[in-house]
Amino acid sequence: MEFRKVLVANRGEIAVRIIRALHQMNVEAVAIYSEADRDALHVRLADQAVCVGPAPSTQSYLNTPNIISAALLTGVDAIHPGYGYLSERADFSEICESHGIVFIGPPAAAIQQMGDKAQARAFMRQAGVPVLPGSEGPVSSERQALKVAGEIGYPVLVKASAGGGGRGMRAAATPEELQRVLQPARNEAEAAFGSADVYLERLITRPRHVEIQVLADRHGHAVHLGERECSLQRRHQKVVEESPSPAVSPELRARMGEAALRGVQACGYVNAGTVEFLLDEQGNFYFLEMNTRIQVEHPVTEEVTGLDLVREQIRIAEGEPLGYDQAGVVIRGHAIECRLNAEDPSRNFMPSPGLIRRYHVPGGPGVRVDSAAFAGYVVPPYYDSMFGKLIVRDRDRAGAIARMSEALDELEVEGLATNIALLRAIVRDPVFQAGTLSTDFIEERILKPAQLQGRR
Amino acid sequence: MEFRKVLVANRGEIAVRIIRALHQMNVEAVAIYSEADRDALHVRLADQAVCVGPAPSTQSYLNTPNIISAALLTGVDAIHPGYGYLSERADFSEICESHGIVFIGPPAAAIQQMGDKAQARAFMRQAGVPVLPGSEGPVSSERQALKVAGEIGYPVLVKASAGGGGRGMRAAATPEELQRVLQPARNEAEAAFGSADVYLERLITRPRHVEIQVLADRHGHAVHLGERECSLQRRHQKVVEESPSPAVSPELRARMGEAALRGVQACGYVNAGTVEFLLDEQGNFYFLEMNTRIQVEHPVTEEVTGLDLVREQIRIAEGEPLGYDQAGVVIRGHAIECRLNAEDPSRNFMPSPGLIRRYHVPGGPGVRVDSAAFAGYVVPPYYDSMFGKLIVRDRDRAGAIARMSEALDELEVEGLATNIALLRAIVRDPVFQAGTLSTDFIEERILKPAQLQGRR
Repeated sequence: MEFRKVLVANRGEIAVRIIRALHQMNVEAVAIYSEADRDALHVRLADQAVCVGPAPSTQSYLNTPNIISAALLTGVDAIHPGYGYLSERADFSEICESHGIVFIGPPAAAIQQMGDKAQARAFMRQAGVPVLPGSEGPVSSERQALKVAGEIGYPVLVKASAGGGGRGMRAAATPEELQRVLQPARNEAEAAFGSADVYLERLITRPRHVEIQVLADRHGHAVHLGERECSLQRRHQKVVEESPSPAVSPELRARMGEAALRGVQACGYVNAGTVEFLLDEQGNFYFLEMNTRIQVEHPVTEEVTGLDLVREQIRIAEGEPLGYDQAGVVIRGHAIECRLNAEDPSRNFMPSPGLIRRYHVPGGPGVRVDSAAFAGYVVPPYYDSMFGKLIVRDRDRAGAIARMSEALDELEVEGLATNIALLRAIVRDPVFQAGTLSTDFIEERILKPAQLQGRR
Repeated sequence: MEFRKVLVANRGEIAVRIIRALHQMNVEAVAIYSEADRDALHVRLADQAVCVGPAPSTQSYLNTPNIISAALLTGVDAIHPGYGYLSERADFSEICESHGIVFIGPPAAAIQQMGDKAQARAFMRQAGVPVLPGSEGPVSSERQALKVAGEIGYPVLVKASAGGGGRGMRAAATPEELQRVLQPARNEAEAAFGSADVYLERLITRPRHVEIQVLADRHGHAVHLGERECSLQRRHQKVVEESPSPAVSPELRARMGEAALRGVQACGYVNAGTVEFLLDEQGNFYFLEMNTRIQVEHPVTEEVTGLDLVREQIRIAEGEPLGYDQAGVVIRGHAIECRLNAEDPSRNFMPSPGLIRRYHVPGGPGVRVDSAAFAGYVVPPYYDSMFGKLIVRDRDRAGAIARMSEALDELEVEGLATNIALLRAIVRDPVFQAGTLSTDFIEERILKPAQLQGRR
């Protein structure tokens, strides 16, 4: 079934990204927007736009009845959920299907299966995917937690079953510490996700976060598109991503890719998905979680494979076969992405909404900008602070770093505080340039030294 | 020799392009500018900038003494001339070298040899490169012209030996017509190039203009980077370019590439160069001329090869070997470039200088902008009307066309007249989409129908 019209149930740069892909496929795009987003770029670019409620996301971008009404009113064939919001809600996918609207994403069952992190872990272990030593499912009592931790060995990590983004997460190096953090972790999980279930995992020191992008069609074909290195995080939020990872050899890529595909095929997955792994310093990798949607950092994979992942998502949802096999996926060059956030690093990364007075983006070979910003745009205070992404590609990693450095120098966003100076510091850091990354990097190499020196 | 500092002897988008490449190579960039270009983007991006004279190009961008003074004053190692201006002036290259400044381009002898179009033609014929049947060198009299034309067969084209850009060029279908146009062609050649020498060539009907990009290092290695289809022209000025050409098979590409390399190696060529061919409807190709500089349309080659041609130029001038052979050059995907001009198609393409009030460029996968424009920029009346280029790439030609169409829709340049609507009409034309291009296309398919319908 070829779509004629698709509703984009999101905002910001990803809504812009999806609308562009739809237009390139000659499909009409319907935007939704909150009252705070009337003048947003995604609204201007869409063929039709429907206001779905007031600024708070729960009343607009998460307002399922209004979004479904907008879809029915405008007569769309499908809904693309983007990332965040309704993208990983199995119930939303089911509601779409029950109204005869295609949900551009995996089947509800796969969303559900991977949505519960402890369940996903158990499932992947059964499918033959390496997982971190840990509890099989949630730990129901302090006694059980201490027993399991003793078996897998300290340090351990307490994680929310329904979680993500670092909430409900606590490390414990000793039994005493585990006793101390267990209840606070439960409370935080309950508050953030509505479920106090937590599980335990071995804590890896200086881990890399490396994820495998997969694509699976409805005809049983699946390929992986190599990995993304996402170790550069601040408080579990990715900041800089790249592909390939400096730590992954072709041989390791093939093994990680095969492991990811085993998991994907075991759960009957369809559409684009990402299997996240922790990679330790010895080159062992462990399943972390699966994201059943397009990721913020998907462009670095696009740049090195030449594939348009959003277009692939739409084609797959239309029932098209992939049309290429694993040998047809060729990784060429190196790509890096920096997330551009309206936040103030000198004030503990406080969001800094407001008017963008001047906006000049770099250009030239290998420079890509995925952004919802423009001169005169007011970044609203209600949403995620990321207003765009700067992506570069070159023949090799050194070239890509040089290109990113120059592009960040040229980028001008005036009128509000941004993380651009932080990004410049990261790409110029010799340890970053050497590729010796871990999830501690930003805290240890960039933020702590800056504090010590009283720099911003 | 690694350059530490390079002067960019140009303005506009190509100066911006070169400065970005220098910065990515960790080389300082010195800009030059005319009094009219004080606020230009290339001046803002450079590490140093020197005013070399008043607005008219002869007094600034062509003012060799001032430019050499600026180079000596700022202590640069090399000069990149860009395209146009001093880029194909053998004497300028010699002056640079005599001051111990590297000219980033071919040796003066090669510039000179290819600069005289009749001489270049004779040289290429000797090197075994197919050339159009025509006069061997300039025709010195009407009698000789008529004799030669009788031998090669009508229709014939009268062309200026020192020429380019269509000036001094006249077609003649009969001996009478040849008698009529010969003197006007001479006069125009004299006025435009300071030499009345003209030569004759067979006129090809519905020709394609297809050019081969070459790179040659100082160590005797040379490769070609495939072709660019440049048939879409208005008055001999290219408007839309793409790579690969829809008319060129891998086999024809190999033959054209080999022919170009024969010519390049015969004349001891070093650095980037372009060998232009006419391609007839039967697939025969004929040497037209060689451009001994970077071309406006170089980005489409960069997009399909993954090479940065300006960086390659600089590396070659530093004495570096290419580092890859012909088998290492892999063409992937399809790229299209549209030239963005401040001109008014409804007023016979009159230049429309002035203030750009609003400027929004598209982004996303496969979209590249090489531009000297920004919101608040005043396009000066003294120079070429091209203020930027929009380049797209995708897996295949249909995808690239769809991407260009969407990107042109999103592009907003407010405050002055531009050719954007014309570009939109071109990429939406079914004949363009079918790839059946010739140098008559814009006149016949776009401009004439618009006039007949009274459209702008």
